[in-house]
Amino acid sequence: MNQQTQKVPVPTLERMARYLACLLDLDAKSVETISSADMERYTDVNAAQFRKDLSYFGEFGRPGIGYSVPELTRRISKILKVDREQPVLLVGAGNLGSALAGYPSLSREHFRIAAVFDNNPAKIGHKLWDVDIYDISKIAEVNARSIDARLAIIAVPSAAAQQVADAVVKCGVTAILNFAPVTLRVPREVTVRNVDFVQELAVLSFHLAP
Amino acid sequence: MNQQTQKVPVPTLERMARYLACLLDLDAKSVETISSADMERYTDVNAAQFRKDLSYFGEFGRPGIGYSVPELTRRISKILKVDREQPVLLVGAGNLGSALAGYPSLSREHFRIAAVFDNNPAKIGHKLWDVDIYDISKIAEVNARSIDARLAIIAVPSAAAQQVADAVVKCGVTAILNFAPVTLRVPREVTVRNVDFVQELAVLSFHLAP
Repeated sequence: MNQQTQKVPVPTLERMARYLACLLDLDAKSVETISSADMERYTDVNAAQFRKDLSYFGEFGRPGIGYSVPELTRRISKILKVDREQPVLLVGAGNLGSALAGYPSLSREHFRIAAVFDNNPAKIGHKLWDVDIYDISKIAEVNARSIDARLAIIAVPSAAAQQVADAVVKCGVTAILNFAPVTLRVPREVTVRNVDFVQELAVLSFHLAP
Repeated sequence: MNQQTQKVPVPTLERMARYLACLLDLDAKSVETISSADMERYTDVNAAQFRKDLSYFGEFGRPGIGYSVPELTRRISKILKVDREQPVLLVGAGNLGSALAGYPSLSREHFRIAAVFDNNPAKIGHKLWDVDIYDISKIAEVNARSIDARLAIIAVPSAAAQQVADAVVKCGVTAILNFAPVTLRVPREVTVRNVDFVQELAVLSFHLAP
């Protein structure tokens, strides 16, 4: 991690990703300028927070005019490095993997599922959407061949997740999106984000009336 | 929201949900006692943070002895209200809905997918896993009949998400887990958590070397 990435709080990054998704929608609708108050309406993040988040990355917008949607889109895309194509390895071709690979906004942010891996012989050699499914034992070989991905999505059952993490890290992956409800052990230089649906429900459950 | 729920920071709640998932694993393995240092090893949340998070909810553990796994499990379950069955409405019976409904740890935290809704005539009247799939126009009727769920999962395409949110809120839902990449408009008393895979990837992408 370089110095810049160390000092930006993770919640700021999460909101930056949210602003970008919103800006891409607005840009697609040919909206040219927005204010931070507009952004609050679109994202539910308050305007002062939006301005503070941007301030980590320099000067944006013009007083009295607001933010140019195409320019802000371009700059946040560059900050998040989604201005260039990022090949992604997807491990797990089950229901979740299928849902992920078919997510319509992936390509908009230049993520490309470059290869899918599974251990089910009935799936290996076939395609998930239009991407080849390979034997899970071939991760290193396939990635080295032409893909050279640094991002991987783990969508396998818990019992297999650590082994998959070890395999993708070994072949050069430095960022993992993990859907298995386990804490992965990875080297310090690898970033992991966990998505656990049941934990999300538990947080919601807390807010229910007794 | 009562006073207690207002003062607990969301990141604390997220970590509480993570501690619970970990404790349930440990309890299943008949581990009886843990220290905050053990917890750090299992969850990657540092020990001081763990103790601070718990302090929002009272006194836990005993100096020199640690935390009783069954007791801590029981108390956090109660705090998060996952000590009782929570029926959940799932809207969207596609790949994502199938993955969610089949998530093995749902039942462990007493979440029960009570009814599934879709607008696809080929699915309506059939089952997703062992749960009936109803016409999406029947949400209010089905929920009122016997379920009375206050939690809903929205796993439909973006264009349909707001309409679904309106429908579930109208029938008494106060907490929504939303997988559609849109900002839902809901009344103030309704809690929404958004899971957006592409935003997760964008946060990871930020951390990649240039």
